Amino acid sequence: MAKIKAGVLGATGAVGQRFIEGLSDHPWFELTSLAASSRSAGKKYCDAARWRLETEMPKDLGDMTVVNVDPSEVDADVVFSALPSDEAQRVEAEFAAAGFVVASNAAANRMKPDIPLMIPECNKEHLDAIKKQQENRGWDGYIVTNPNCTTIMFTLSLKPLMKFGIESVHIASMQAVSGAGYEGVPSMAILGNIIPYIGGEEEKVETEPQKILGTFDGEKIVSADFSVSASCHRVPVMDGHTEAIWVTMRDDPSPAEVREAFLKFDPGLGDLPTEPKKPLIVRDEPDRPQPRLDRNAGRGMAISVGRIRSGIRYICMGHNTVRGAAGASILNAELLHQKGLL
Amino acid sequence: MAKIKAGVLGATGAVGQRFIEGLSDHPWFELTSLAASSRSAGKKYCDAARWRLETEMPKDLGDMTVVNVDPSEVDADVVFSALPSDEAQRVEAEFAAAGFVVASNAAANRMKPDIPLMIPECNKEHLDAIKKQQENRGWDGYIVTNPNCTTIMFTLSLKPLMKFGIESVHIASMQAVSGAGYEGVPSMAILGNIIPYIGGEEEKVETEPQKILGTFDGEKIVSADFSVSASCHRVPVMDGHTEAIWVTMRDDPSPAEVREAFLKFDPGLGDLPTEPKKPLIVRDEPDRPQPRLDRNAGRGMAISVGRIRSGIRYICMGHNTVRGAAGASILNAELLHQKGLL
Amino acid sequence: MAKIKAGVLGATGAVGQRFIEGLSDHPWFELTSLAASSRSAGKKYCDAARWRLETEMPKDLGDMTVVNVDPSEVDADVVFSALPSDEAQRVEAEFAAAGFVVASNAAANRMKPDIPLMIPECNKEHLDAIKKQQENRGWDGYIVTNPNCTTIMFTLSLKPLMKFGIESVHIASMQAVSGAGYEGVPSMAILGNIIPYIGGEEEKVETEPQKILGTFDGEKIVSADFSVSASCHRVPVMDGHTEAIWVTMRDDPSPAEVREAFLKFDPGLGDLPTEPKKPLIVRDEPDRPQPRLDRNAGRGMAISVGRIRSGIRYICMGHNTVRGAAGASILNAELLHQKGLL
Amino acid sequence: MAKIKAGVLGATGAVGQRFIEGLSDHPWFELTSLAASSRSAGKKYCDAARWRLETEMPKDLGDMTVVNVDPSEVDADVVFSALPSDEAQRVEAEFAAAGFVVASNAAANRMKPDIPLMIPECNKEHLDAIKKQQENRGWDGYIVTNPNCTTIMFTLSLKPLMKFGIESVHIASMQAVSGAGYEGVPSMAILGNIIPYIGGEEEKVETEPQKILGTFDGEKIVSADFSVSASCHRVPVMDGHTEAIWVTMRDDPSPAEVREAFLKFDPGLGDLPTEPKKPLIVRDEPDRPQPRLDRNAGRGMAISVGRIRSGIRYICMGHNTVRGAAGASILNAELLHQKGLL
Repeated sequence: MAKIKAGVLGATGAVGQRFIEGLSDHPWFELTSLAASSRSAGKKYCDAARWRLETEMPKDLGDMTVVNVDPSEVDADVVFSALPSDEAQRVEAEFAAAGFVVASNAAANRMKPDIPLMIPECNKEHLDAIKKQQENRGWDGYIVTNPNCTTIMFTLSLKPLMKFGIESVHIASMQAVSGAGYEGVPSMAILGNIIPYIGGEEEKVETEPQKILGTFDGEKIVSADFSVSASCHRVPVMDGHTEAIWVTMRDDPSPAEVREAFLKFDPGLGDLPTEPKKPLIVRDEPDRPQPRLDRNAGRGMAISVGRIRSGIRYICMGHNTVRGAAGASILNAELLHQKGLL
Repeated sequence: MAKIKAGVLGATGAVGQRFIEGLSDHPWFELTSLAASSRSAGKKYCDAARWRLETEMPKDLGDMTVVNVDPSEVDADVVFSALPSDEAQRVEAEFAAAGFVVASNAAANRMKPDIPLMIPECNKEHLDAIKKQQENRGWDGYIVTNPNCTTIMFTLSLKPLMKFGIESVHIASMQAVSGAGYEGVPSMAILGNIIPYIGGEEEKVETEPQKILGTFDGEKIVSADFSVSASCHRVPVMDGHTEAIWVTMRDDPSPAEVREAFLKFDPGLGDLPTEPKKPLIVRDEPDRPQPRLDRNAGRGMAISVGRIRSGIRYICMGHNTVRGAAGASILNAELLHQKGLL
Repeated sequence: MAKIKAGVLGATGAVGQRFIEGLSDHPWFELTSLAASSRSAGKKYCDAARWRLETEMPKDLGDMTVVNVDPSEVDADVVFSALPSDEAQRVEAEFAAAGFVVASNAAANRMKPDIPLMIPECNKEHLDAIKKQQENRGWDGYIVTNPNCTTIMFTLSLKPLMKFGIESVHIASMQAVSGAGYEGVPSMAILGNIIPYIGGEEEKVETEPQKILGTFDGEKIVSADFSVSASCHRVPVMDGHTEAIWVTMRDDPSPAEVREAFLKFDPGLGDLPTEPKKPLIVRDEPDRPQPRLDRNAGRGMAISVGRIRSGIRYICMGHNTVRGAAGASILNAELLHQKGLL
Repeated sequence: MAKIKAGVLGATGAVGQRFIEGLSDHPWFELTSLAASSRSAGKKYCDAARWRLETEMPKDLGDMTVVNVDPSEVDADVVFSALPSDEAQRVEAEFAAAGFVVASNAAANRMKPDIPLMIPECNKEHLDAIKKQQENRGWDGYIVTNPNCTTIMFTLSLKPLMKFGIESVHIASMQAVSGAGYEGVPSMAILGNIIPYIGGEEEKVETEPQKILGTFDGEKIVSADFSVSASCHRVPVMDGHTEAIWVTMRDDPSPAEVREAFLKFDPGLGDLPTEPKKPLIVRDEPDRPQPRLDRNAGRGMAISVGRIRSGIRYICMGHNTVRGAAGASILNAELLHQKGLL
């Protein structure tokens, strides 16, 4: 079987590099196009990008010539977007109009009611909105998005709790510096320090989960009815977002019932290549999960939960640039392919 | 005026050193006795203790001979206790029985209904329990305690909010490693990592604030009626606990009203030497308070608050070994002296 | 082919865990015995050891019962010693006398003239000393040791420079905290700090390289004739020792000649399972090698060198608990098996 | 006595802020002019600068209006230059030509033979070059510079060793991130990592000490005759450069003789306000100096040395943005005033 041709928009940045890492040996996708700003276009990728990952840059990709972020220059069936939000707003629509499938990690289009905001384990039925999206917009292609990194971690953990009737959620996040991109957080700002603020983050975290856990009514995706109140903090951790979660539920389940729900959670996805064996890993040690020890569980795609206490309170942890960014988009594209949409 | 003679119990440890730092040039107290375990007793302090602070060890104190933690060996009017909780349980009563005033940072006696758990800015009227304590126990001396470091920070911020009718509090703490003592947190545990657990901490944080903000009914201290739900985390920060706080209040004040209450908060203490000019400092920048920049405000005795948002949510930060430990005990003793109890 | 039975002495500690990680799927060795102190003996390994690695504890090993560090309790052909130096001094001889092959990471026996101090890529001919060792000591088994972690990194880089006539070496090391064991470096000592001292380290670093690069004269191993002057420092890095090296050589080679010697270095080992494809990786970027990016090169077994400048100066970096400890012992045992000595 | 009017060029950056901190309560100088780029000019200082220091921004300075870096806009007798090197090259000459005394922390003019490169404790006689400089260049004002931060630390320690006949120096530096400015080192680059390269640093470190310790021959400053070989590394430390030093000397002094020379070193400066009581502090503990504990010695102006061993080897540590930057320039200006040159 011929592989599906894949491009990366914003290929030189931190998330772009994670896309390349995740796609370079992919069983279904083949990287055929690396697009970046005009400053990089025309150069070999290994000259345009300063590789920042602990794995080596895939050799053959280093020799590819970077193209402009322009539908006419990109040769691909699906493009993965690691663009900054303002650029994504304009560019992703151009690609969708030109017939591309756009799997986007950008925030720009996440909250539009006809654009799915996907976590495959949570809301695969939202893919039904794609047809509506194409009708509404007259596009040959379409856009699917994945949530903000902080949203993904705890929303995945909320999914199996929906049956208890979620009423409200409090979340305090302790977020890794890689979430801000390579130049995002100066070392003088964060060494031995906490920054109790991440621009725009709380707004995303307080609205995305309800859309993800909502329903598509045939016309639009309607958000679920619960509140989220977030306090987001940057901490001196390289990778891995840790979240302290409180969930108030109508049925007031016990910690044991919540643990049981986490353990039994089976998203029934089939067998997507990037999917972790279990999306939620329950740690019963008193002091887990921890980013250093748990972020790579399920090759960075599993969410670890622990310390389930009355309240209901628990800790939720996941790899922010894998499960929370590039891996999320790739899993979305795998689902699209499985469903015959790609 | 002759100075009041002061001893430190547990003088060689991390909090003991902070006591010495805080007392070495004190206008009212004079360090006359440094007590530690039998391993240290008999040695010169500079040989017994490995000084870990950024300030230099006060010279004259280095030459003092360490004595045993025994009322018969300690020459002092007031003793400051930096003992581990289990030892404090036994020893502090011995000192109180022997006529000493004990200003304790240990957890052992904090929740006893006839022993004041003091934050001078919050509950100076609880000192009335001292007489009852002496009656109950037949002691010539007495014990006053200060709260857990994490408790102190946000409880101080709750005091001016009591008028709005506090119903419940959620707190996620990001706590500095110095809170665990010098050997408490191995670097391999915390470098670039978060540990979402601190043994015994959440239990303290969830019960102490209500006692502090409660009332003395003539017989015992009765806790205030609100709930606290805590999630405590260790972070790679040297000094300074950062806390994300949510407070639900009957009167549902706006963020502006909460800010106003913080700004206007005046504990009316008079002029205690260790007291900060303002106990609560309101930071209006979007990304403050931060431990590195704000922990030394008011010589480590002020609490900084910021990011007051609807919810009500805010960030609270203070120096855990100064305001949260040694400085808290010293301020208590200053209040005792001001009230003629020492 | 039946696998060789392998035991680990000191199996619960930090290096012991790295041994288990390195041996759990080994093509030649099979873990048959996990030995530790009497505190752990009798317990299941998963109860005796607190697993600290980012990889999961191998499941079947977690169920093994820990035995005492006693030849009569250990069932193995080769034992890997992660014992503390004082205990190793006594115990390793007992095991060798009882017929075991001892592959030791401990310092106790490293400098004995009839005990090989091995880096397989440097001095495989020193294995000839084993027969002499057995004669001298009347042992059925024998001991081979691997060097101190800091020694291994730069000694490997010196090997291909020996032809230029090494006269003297200066080394300033920046060593990761994992080298001191899990409890070895308190976070309060090293967060945002440098400790310019590691007990006993400089002495090892200044004598071991000459033995490794020396010759076996039929009776004893005679150290090579050059001097090493070391300054060893602890830095807030989890894994990976970085070393600034100056080498004065008789032939005064140019940086290009040194680079060429590094690139061409082929130890001719054959194909040992733990051996990296290239023992020395030359990085030509201006700012490499770095511990975070390069420590896992060659699955942690390759040494990365870079910034080769006149002087001759260069930077040398390797994974201290893999290439510098457990991996070094395992590679030694693989060489023993290849040479028919195991 | 009226104070000397002082301006800061580049007042908003990291070193500029240290200048303001050091000058705001100065007994001899009065801050009369804050100059910065056109982006800041015209704004109030508190709006133009994001204050990054742990101390509070001096209130009255926050209200000053920032001016352009232009002699016609700056009202001052002496200007302190925290300009980037390329801008300094052009601008400092303009100020000197316009009659200002320029005390510069920039690298641009350091190595010019008629411009003193000053450490007051080392080479106050080089001030004689000022007259020559004015003659050569036809300036009414003049420029004095201070060395690179890494240079200052160990050069101060070399001064009392000059009598032993210094032949060569090896230095491996472990440099704090603040040396690169607030945005200089991304946290993703340095958290738990070492970067073994700092652009342009080794070149400065290898040439500046010889000029500082050289002599003014009436025409030009002639560098002393010894070699320096440097390896410079960035470490995850906020403030304080640690240096491992080897010094080869003709007279081959013992460690005790070197220690004695350090202890007896008395620069005979008189009593400059910013001068530390002792420029060199000898630490006899086995593991000192350390940046966290020792960087603030002498209010950040003293250099701490320790671990003096045969070789001669020792450790040298100082505060890079105080003694190594702003404090160095201020001390230079104090010396100028003392000598009647300002």
